[in-house]
Amino acid sequence: MIIILKQNASKEDADNILDEIEKTGLKPLFLPGVERIVIGAIGDERLLNEKQFENFPQVDQVKPVLSPYKLVSREFNNGNTIVKIGDVAIGGKEFVTIAGPCAVENTLQMNRSANVVKKAGARILRGGAFKPRTSPYSFQGLGLEGLKILAAAAKEHGLPSVTEVVEVNDIDAVEQYSDAFQVGARNMQNFRLLTELGQRRKPVILKRGFAAKVEDLLLAAEYIVAEGNPNVILCERGIRTFETCTRNTLDLNAVPYLKTKSHLPVIVDPSHGTGLRDLVAPMAFAAAACGADGLIIEVHPDPKSALSDGMQSLYPEQFATMMQDLNKFVLAANRTML
Amino acid sequence: MIIILKQNASKEDADNILDEIEKTGLKPLFLPGVERIVIGAIGDERLLNEKQFENFPQVDQVKPVLSPYKLVSREFNNGNTIVKIGDVAIGGKEFVTIAGPCAVENTLQMNRSANVVKKAGARILRGGAFKPRTSPYSFQGLGLEGLKILAAAAKEHGLPSVTEVVEVNDIDAVEQYSDAFQVGARNMQNFRLLTELGQRRKPVILKRGFAAKVEDLLLAAEYIVAEGNPNVILCERGIRTFETCTRNTLDLNAVPYLKTKSHLPVIVDPSHGTGLRDLVAPMAFAAAACGADGLIIEVHPDPKSALSDGMQSLYPEQFATMMQDLNKFVLAANRTML
Amino acid sequence: MIIILKQNASKEDADNILDEIEKTGLKPLFLPGVERIVIGAIGDERLLNEKQFENFPQVDQVKPVLSPYKLVSREFNNGNTIVKIGDVAIGGKEFVTIAGPCAVENTLQMNRSANVVKKAGARILRGGAFKPRTSPYSFQGLGLEGLKILAAAAKEHGLPSVTEVVEVNDIDAVEQYSDAFQVGARNMQNFRLLTELGQRRKPVILKRGFAAKVEDLLLAAEYIVAEGNPNVILCERGIRTFETCTRNTLDLNAVPYLKTKSHLPVIVDPSHGTGLRDLVAPMAFAAAACGADGLIIEVHPDPKSALSDGMQSLYPEQFATMMQDLNKFVLAANRTML
Amino acid sequence: MIIILKQNASKEDADNILDEIEKTGLKPLFLPGVERIVIGAIGDERLLNEKQFENFPQVDQVKPVLSPYKLVSREFNNGNTIVKIGDVAIGGKEFVTIAGPCAVENTLQMNRSANVVKKAGARILRGGAFKPRTSPYSFQGLGLEGLKILAAAAKEHGLPSVTEVVEVNDIDAVEQYSDAFQVGARNMQNFRLLTELGQRRKPVILKRGFAAKVEDLLLAAEYIVAEGNPNVILCERGIRTFETCTRNTLDLNAVPYLKTKSHLPVIVDPSHGTGLRDLVAPMAFAAAACGADGLIIEVHPDPKSALSDGMQSLYPEQFATMMQDLNKFVLAANRTML
Repeated sequence: MIIILKQNASKEDADNILDEIEKTGLKPLFLPGVERIVIGAIGDERLLNEKQFENFPQVDQVKPVLSPYKLVSREFNNGNTIVKIGDVAIGGKEFVTIAGPCAVENTLQMNRSANVVKKAGARILRGGAFKPRTSPYSFQGLGLEGLKILAAAAKEHGLPSVTEVVEVNDIDAVEQYSDAFQVGARNMQNFRLLTELGQRRKPVILKRGFAAKVEDLLLAAEYIVAEGNPNVILCERGIRTFETCTRNTLDLNAVPYLKTKSHLPVIVDPSHGTGLRDLVAPMAFAAAACGADGLIIEVHPDPKSALSDGMQSLYPEQFATMMQDLNKFVLAANRTML
Repeated sequence: MIIILKQNASKEDADNILDEIEKTGLKPLFLPGVERIVIGAIGDERLLNEKQFENFPQVDQVKPVLSPYKLVSREFNNGNTIVKIGDVAIGGKEFVTIAGPCAVENTLQMNRSANVVKKAGARILRGGAFKPRTSPYSFQGLGLEGLKILAAAAKEHGLPSVTEVVEVNDIDAVEQYSDAFQVGARNMQNFRLLTELGQRRKPVILKRGFAAKVEDLLLAAEYIVAEGNPNVILCERGIRTFETCTRNTLDLNAVPYLKTKSHLPVIVDPSHGTGLRDLVAPMAFAAAACGADGLIIEVHPDPKSALSDGMQSLYPEQFATMMQDLNKFVLAANRTML
Repeated sequence: MIIILKQNASKEDADNILDEIEKTGLKPLFLPGVERIVIGAIGDERLLNEKQFENFPQVDQVKPVLSPYKLVSREFNNGNTIVKIGDVAIGGKEFVTIAGPCAVENTLQMNRSANVVKKAGARILRGGAFKPRTSPYSFQGLGLEGLKILAAAAKEHGLPSVTEVVEVNDIDAVEQYSDAFQVGARNMQNFRLLTELGQRRKPVILKRGFAAKVEDLLLAAEYIVAEGNPNVILCERGIRTFETCTRNTLDLNAVPYLKTKSHLPVIVDPSHGTGLRDLVAPMAFAAAACGADGLIIEVHPDPKSALSDGMQSLYPEQFATMMQDLNKFVLAANRTML
Repeated sequence: MIIILKQNASKEDADNILDEIEKTGLKPLFLPGVERIVIGAIGDERLLNEKQFENFPQVDQVKPVLSPYKLVSREFNNGNTIVKIGDVAIGGKEFVTIAGPCAVENTLQMNRSANVVKKAGARILRGGAFKPRTSPYSFQGLGLEGLKILAAAAKEHGLPSVTEVVEVNDIDAVEQYSDAFQVGARNMQNFRLLTELGQRRKPVILKRGFAAKVEDLLLAAEYIVAEGNPNVILCERGIRTFETCTRNTLDLNAVPYLKTKSHLPVIVDPSHGTGLRDLVAPMAFAAAACGADGLIIEVHPDPKSALSDGMQSLYPEQFATMMQDLNKFVLAANRTML
């Protein structure tokens, strides 16, 4: 850790901080510059977090040398973690597509969806039972009933399933009916939820918050892993920027960046990342090209009648065509699709 | 609602939509332009939400005429809602300051804090017992123990208290020990939490999410009010932008904007809004000048030793000076401080 | 154009606006809703721009039906414009890579660069003579001398060249020594520069400003085309967001979006778009995958000694490897590389 | 300067960098940590800029200790620079309001404007002759003719005047007819323009670019001051964020922040900063409250007919009322209005 003092800081101010560092067991360094005093601390700087040197009145800046996350970092584990949802491995050689409607609406819709996405090559079924919606006047999901419909459709078609969990109290139900937990963008920093999921064994798809830095995403994953659940899949789904022609700005830079910093699998959601049906396929191809391990995509048997996110849901035939073209990019990236 | 069709849309596409509008009981309008067909719907367009016309393949844009929130809008209630926390009214003539440490650390710290802020003119005591922290390795708050310490210090000094609630399961405890619920920025769209708080009677301070539009904040407030709890106080606390010299960008534009759109009280948090101790006072003055109804400010008896957010916490003497200067701006704004 | 009046607007306010629309020759529509009066105007709404209805006191919102750009839109020209730089066509079947150092430093460096990029498959040579730099204490480019060095290296290696023009007064010189004008992100809304370039015939590579919406980029292109120069190539190079782990956020969504809205070629700059050498190749592949017509990439014979942007410049061997892998993605996208 | 090497960097990599630092005359420091090697450089680190250590392959991060600007910083000059426009001093005890229409339209409009703003208490007249407009189909200003009209109206009413300069070639004309140069947000990083203005003596109002960090603004000012013109006034006018309910997000945090970092005067433009007429007055009050030295505000004798920015222009009577109320906030801030 590097600590830069204010211009008017005294030797005494510096001594004060040097003492604190020494007490923690790290090696303090006194580096008087021409215009500023700089202080260094050698050792595991995470021990200094509780000292909060930025609070000291004569401190101008505190610059950490190490990243604030540890267990999810490549420095901790330089391999590639492979996470299994049901019997499907994510993070290995296979490029995996998760697909299905935004929301579970009824049995017929889920069965048609499962049939369509399986035939086109998707390996996992998605569908939301608990829907966080910006407006209280929008459809809020079927809840437990939705979980059951999803589970039945998944079983019927031999696909594992994933669904969003929005509340600690729903974890048991989601765990019972689904093969993986999905944490939505709005809950990426619901730390209580993350902590509880860290105590379960089923995998967690952790979506990046729409105002979360990549570092925030890795720290959120660290919450889960630190509690004992190593099965985390990171998901880039677009961030909020000044651009309004698309629903979000899909930050594909984050994909290769995450892969260099973390050993966890990374998937991309081009449906929320664009918000526009016609942009889903090209951005899915781009995701495969820049190193993602898979996709999560909204497909609806009849987008016109979808109760949520119909504007970004693919038609069944669009999805089938996309999957065929996707295969070429997956091969170019030295990956395979089943 | 105005619906603009794509350039290649046919009369049949239009008829299809006109029928759907008619079925809902609104009056459809067919407006064939030179380059595009435009369709209008006259009546309560919120009834059209479930139609999701943006999902229709031949629809280019859907432009609502009315705002998506209703109960919190000035169109619904053109007065100024006054919300009472304990016996302190927010939203009326008095400009109210809520102050205290970021986190409850122990009894001594809370008693010293209560003493300091009360003497300087604060009317309500704050202190966090449940702390959402970006890193799992940071102090997470004292929980129930913290609630009790806060309640005791508040009672001892004759101040009402507010504290953050982060989870549905904690609502009962917070309601028991505190005079108001605070919903933090990260939970502004925790709709389950909002819905539950809407079924209580104690007031809710709803902080704007750091990537939330003003409209999203009003819709989040609508969740609470629609459930039956009219006692919502909106709080601007800074948004996330590209600027990094301050912790957040305090969006004071939002204050007069919210006041023109909504009847709810609006307060400002210049501590999180700047993240820098020296900027808290000037931005508190600016908040009073642009029409806020009050402030929520972090003060710590010893910021250097604070377990969280010490960098933005005021020293007791800084807070006292700030309150004296603040009074002049409050008077300039035709408001009073007790 | 749709004009929504404020809640308290009167029939007289509406008549006032209806009259103004009629005077312009468009057909006015009076649409009294339940809660608001809405007014429509049928015809070429660009004629209404000068009326500035948003200035009227009783007007709440003005919603255009048509896009504000015209000549660059697909509605005006549904083909794909092909722009030639020297003898290299951009926007057709071939996927074109432009490469070279950020700044022209000296003859040796440019010749080594030209040699390296040509061998690896680049078709056009880049190099900056006029460098806009954030700090006055950074290297500002060689100016005219740099233009001559670039031209000589390009000629020697049989490559066309492109270079940035930052000032109206430099246009003649750049036109003399280079095969295309590059307008940098900071000048995307230097309308005087755009207007002058619109009066020349050499092509213009127009980089998106780092705070420019896609619509702003298209309007900037419209400035050039409206003056008579149809040879504009749009370039996505990253926007400024809250994310700081990369220099910019490369907005690849913009590529397929631009292709659906405009007939102009679109290229991508993954060097500025990421700012990190190791992210250039994966994002170049992603650009090819999502439909870009080409790339512009910084390559330096010795990045360690580069006078600007060395951190994002590829090593010669990195570039050669990237080009080989790129070919697979280009083929997957049904394009070719020479 | 602090240089953090990558995890796999060797002693030899470090030596290489230590040598480079030594050659520049600074004192190198070798700080081998537990997980990383850190290198320090003691002395004037601006000398290291050209070394570009971030380009070195084994370097992970470079962290400057000093700010990259110098002449404009408080560390260089701890007083308050006062800049005179005509005979009006900005940056001293007096709080100064600059007002007038967005664009010069004709003699009558400018004379009415000058009359109105002077009577209400404005001290300097504004009006644009060269207008940068997002669309080529919008009014682009009267050019030289506009400069003359502005100068005549200013003289007639005994007010100094300011107007925007967008091009090096226009500097002479603007200097002849106006008392100060205004550099607009889109030209804040037009470094050629800044350099030329640095060689003149008339003051420069430098508006913050809408995607410029505060540090970028200070570096742009440094360009002007480094060339010899110390008369720079910084202007906060709003930045581009995800919020769309206002035209820009007025970043008032920047005002006290700039005042702590720089000795230059700081004014605020609440017209562009909000884009909404009704928000101009409250944000003007907030600007005075948080420490600004003045305002620049758009006032139009007839906003409904304004050729640009009418939506944010105040009516004459609104401006007069605002100025009366403003006085109370100016006094609260221990400043005066004439």
